[in-house]
Amino acid sequence: MLSTINPSQTLNKKTYKDTLRPLELRLTALQHTIQMKKIPVMIVFEGWSAAGKGTSIARVVHPLEQGHFDVHTMGKLNEDKQMRPFLWSFWTRTPAKGRITIVDKSWHRISMPSMRTSWNLTPMEIQGFYEDAAAFERQLTDDGTLIIKLFLHISQQEQHRRLFALQENPSTAWRVTDADWEQNRHYKTTQQQFENMLQKTGTLANPWHIIESDDAHYATIKIFNTIITAIENRIKQGIFVTAPIPPQSKRIFHLREIDSAATINDSEYKEALAEYRQRLNYLGHKMYKQRRSAILVYEGWDAAGKGGNIKRLTEELDPRAYIVVPIGPPSMEELSHHYLWRFATRLPKDGHMTIFDRSWYGRVLIEHIDRLTPEPIWRRAYQEINEFEQHLTNNGTIILKFWLHIDAKEQKRRLKDRETDPLKKHKISEADWRNLAQRAEYEKAIDEMLTRTQTPHAPWIIVASNHKKFARIKVLKSVTRALEAELRKPNE
Amino acid sequence: MLSTINPSQTLNKKTYKDTLRPLELRLTALQHTIQMKKIPVMIVFEGWSAAGKGTSIARVVHPLEQGHFDVHTMGKLNEDKQMRPFLWSFWTRTPAKGRITIVDKSWHRISMPSMRTSWNLTPMEIQGFYEDAAAFERQLTDDGTLIIKLFLHISQQEQHRRLFALQENPSTAWRVTDADWEQNRHYKTTQQQFENMLQKTGTLANPWHIIESDDAHYATIKIFNTIITAIENRIKQGIFVTAPIPPQSKRIFHLREIDSAATINDSEYKEALAEYRQRLNYLGHKMYKQRRSAILVYEGWDAAGKGGNIKRLTEELDPRAYIVVPIGPPSMEELSHHYLWRFATRLPKDGHMTIFDRSWYGRVLIEHIDRLTPEPIWRRAYQEINEFEQHLTNNGTIILKFWLHIDAKEQKRRLKDRETDPLKKHKISEADWRNLAQRAEYEKAIDEMLTRTQTPHAPWIIVASNHKKFARIKVLKSVTRALEAELRKPNE
Repeated sequence: MLSTINPSQTLNKKTYKDTLRPLELRLTALQHTIQMKKIPVMIVFEGWSAAGKGTSIARVVHPLEQGHFDVHTMGKLNEDKQMRPFLWSFWTRTPAKGRITIVDKSWHRISMPSMRTSWNLTPMEIQGFYEDAAAFERQLTDDGTLIIKLFLHISQQEQHRRLFALQENPSTAWRVTDADWEQNRHYKTTQQQFENMLQKTGTLANPWHIIESDDAHYATIKIFNTIITAIENRIKQGIFVTAPIPPQSKRIFHLREIDSAATINDSEYKEALAEYRQRLNYLGHKMYKQRRSAILVYEGWDAAGKGGNIKRLTEELDPRAYIVVPIGPPSMEELSHHYLWRFATRLPKDGHMTIFDRSWYGRVLIEHIDRLTPEPIWRRAYQEINEFEQHLTNNGTIILKFWLHIDAKEQKRRLKDRETDPLKKHKISEADWRNLAQRAEYEKAIDEMLTRTQTPHAPWIIVASNHKKFARIKVLKSVTRALEAELRKPNE
Repeated sequence: MLSTINPSQTLNKKTYKDTLRPLELRLTALQHTIQMKKIPVMIVFEGWSAAGKGTSIARVVHPLEQGHFDVHTMGKLNEDKQMRPFLWSFWTRTPAKGRITIVDKSWHRISMPSMRTSWNLTPMEIQGFYEDAAAFERQLTDDGTLIIKLFLHISQQEQHRRLFALQENPSTAWRVTDADWEQNRHYKTTQQQFENMLQKTGTLANPWHIIESDDAHYATIKIFNTIITAIENRIKQGIFVTAPIPPQSKRIFHLREIDSAATINDSEYKEALAEYRQRLNYLGHKMYKQRRSAILVYEGWDAAGKGGNIKRLTEELDPRAYIVVPIGPPSMEELSHHYLWRFATRLPKDGHMTIFDRSWYGRVLIEHIDRLTPEPIWRRAYQEINEFEQHLTNNGTIILKFWLHIDAKEQKRRLKDRETDPLKKHKISEADWRNLAQRAEYEKAIDEMLTRTQTPHAPWIIVASNHKKFARIKVLKSVTRALEAELRKPNE
C-alpha cells in the first residue's frame, strides 16, 4: 500500500492558489451545514514525523469558524492519561453534534510498536486495546459521527531534508527528537509498521486516505478535496442505522423466578457489617497502592433502596478515593454526544472507585420502555455496552453490576410509604407510578438486559432487596470478595 | 495561637455516640436547605500529617446525600496543575450553587515553606500568590460561597504514635513518608509555620477553626458543631453584598475622543501582514519552548470585526497551541458558579494561548447595561477582574486586551449591510440594534471599564477599527511586540 504510493506528487504555486480559494469557501459553507444538520465530524491526522501535520491542520482550520472546532494533540502521555483507560482521552474529546474535532495522532497508534514502549503494554494487551479501538470507532460511526482518516506520507529523502532544516533553524531545533532521526534511519521498518497499521485499522466505513505530502501544495489540495468529498457524501447519505439487530440469545435470567425475599437477622447483620467493612477498608488501601480502579454499577427497581445501599457500602471507604455519580436525565451537552460519553468522562483513575447510581443501562431500560430511542439503536447498545466494559477491564478496571430486586408488592408498598412520609415525599414522582404500571414490560427488558450483558469480566449480581439489611450485606460481601480475588498480589 | 491550644481534649464513647446521631440528622437536613437556597459550601481541611483528615472527611460526608458533594485531595501537584496558574485547580473545583465541596488541603498551603519546594517558587512569587489566594477566597465569599476552614491539631506525641501505628500496619505502611517523620521531628518549627499560615490566612469573614484532634471522638463532634453552626449562620444571614463600591477614579479613557478612522494602504498592509506573521510564527515556537502562556482578550462594539481580526491573527499560529473561546450567554452550569469560573476553567496551559472572543468584561458591559446584575455586584467586578488578571501575570501569563473601536456611523452601516447580505444575515439579531440604541450608555460604561482595569501587566489597547485592515495590523503588531518584549530570554 504505502510502498506503492509515490509521495512526491507536485502542484505548481499558480494552480495551488487558484484551486485553494474555492475549496476554502466550500469548506466554510459545509461547516455551516454540519452545524445545522448536527453532524459531529472527527478528522484524524496520522503520518510520518515532519510530514507536515501541524501545517496541514493550520490550513484546514483556516476557513473554519473560530470557536466551532477543536484541535487536540494526542501523542504524548501525561499523568492524567496514564492513570485512565487508553480510550478515555479519546472519548472525552469526541465532538459534540455539529462540531469538528481534529486530532493530531489517534487511537490507531495502538497498532504501532512504539506504543508498546510509551504505554508499557504487553503484546496481549496491545491486541485487546486494538480491538477496543476498533469498537470505539465503529460505535462513533454508528452514532452518526463522520470520521475522516488522513495519513501524511513523505519519502525518506524529504523527511531527512525537513528534519535537517528544522534542526538548522534555532527556533525549531528543539522540535527534532532522537526518535525522529531514528524513524528516518529505519524508514523501511517504520513504513512496514505504518502499512500494518493502515491495513489493520482501515475499514469500509472509514478508510484511510493516503496524502502524498512531499509537496505541501499538492498535499493541502488533496486534504481539502478528501475532507470536502467525505462531508458531502455524509450529508447526502443522512443518518442511517447500519447496525444489525442481534439475534435472540437464550435467556439466562428470569426475574420472576428470583426470590427477592431473602432475609438476615439483626445479630448476623451487625456481625457481617462489621466484618466486611473492615475487610473493605483494607482493600481500599490495597487498591490505591496497587493502582487498580473499580466501577460499581447500581441498577434496580424504583424504591429498591439503591441510595441506602450505596451509603452503607461507602461508609468505610476513604471519601478521597471514591465518587458516587447519580445518573438522571441527560443534560443538553450530554445529549449532543454519544450516549456513552457522559460515562466515559467519569471513569475512575487508577486507585479510585466510581459508583454509578443508575448507568449506561438506561439505554436499554427507560430509553427502551419509554420509546425515547428507536429500537435498532437501543438494541445496538447491548454490543456497545459489552465492548465498553470490555475495554475497562482490559485496562485493569474491576467492574461489578448490581440489580437490586424487589417484588411488585414490596415496590408498591414502598412507593405508598413515600407518599405518606413527609420526609420521603420529595423522592417520589408521577414517573414512579408510571414505571410501576409498566412493571411487566420492564421485567422483560431487564431479563434481556441481564442475559445479553452478563459477561465473565463484568458480571451482574442480582440482589434480593425486599429486606434492605440482607441486600446491604450481599453487596458488601460481593464487592469484598471480588476485590480480594482481583487484588491477590501481596502488599509489598 | 496553636501553641496555646491543648490538642488533647477527650470525649468518652458513650457521650460521643449520643451526641453524634442528632448532629448527623441536623447536617442531613441542612444539606437540603443548602440545595434549596442554592448556597455553595466549601469545607477546607488543613492540619498536621496523620491528624485524621481522611477519617474526619469520611465522618462528615456520612450523613450527606451521595452525588451532591465532592471531595478533592489538593496536595500533590500533577502535570496538569503544574502547567497552569496556581489557583486554576481551586477555581475549577469551586462548588456550584447548592453543592458542598470538601478539600483536603487548600490554597492556604501557599503560606507554608514546603510549597516553595514543591512549586519551585521564589519568596517574591510566594508573596504574590499569597495575595492572589486571599483575593480568590474573598471573591468566593462575596459571591455567596460559604467557606468553612478547619485546622486539625494534634500533639507531637500523638502524631508520633499514629505515624508509628500506620507504619506497623502492612496495609497502611506505604502512606507514611519521610516528610511525615521530618514534620514530627521538627514539630516546633512546623508549628511555627502553621501558626504563621493561620494568622496570615484567617479573616473576619472566614476564620480558622482549630480542631483539637488527639481524640478522634472529640474532634468529630467539634467538626460537626463547627460546620453546623457556620451553615446555620449563613442561612440566617441570607446573601448580602459586603463589597464597598470603589470611589470614582480619574477617567483616563474617553472613547469619544478616540479616532477610529485610521487607515493603511494596500501595499503597506500586505507588507506588514507578511512581516508580522513571520515574526509571530517564530514567537509561537519560542513561547512553547519557554513554556510561557498568553491570553488575548477581544472586546469591542458589535460588528467591529472581532472574528475577522482573530482569523488574521491566528493564521500563522500552530492550531495545536492556541484555542479561541467565543463567549456567549452563560449556560445553566456556568450560571451556578462564580462568574469568573467559566474563564478560570479555560486558562491556557504553559506554552499555549487562549483567545477570548468577548470575556469576563461582559460583567461590567452587557450585565451592567442590561441590568442583569445589580450595581454593587458589577461594580465589585473591577477589583475582581484586576485581581484575576494579576494572578495570571504572577503566574507568568502574558495578557493583552483589545478594544475594537468603530464609530456610531460605521457601526450602523455595518449592521445595515448584514441585514441585506444573505451570507451575513445570520450574524445579526434584534439585540444588535438594541445595543446600538444604547450606544451612549455603553460608551460611558466602556470608558469606566477601560479606566479601572488599565494595568501595567494587563494593558488595554484601543484598536481603531473603521478600517479592518488597519485594525488587523495594529493587533498583529501589538501582540508581536508584547511577546518579543516578554520572551527576551534567548533560545538555547
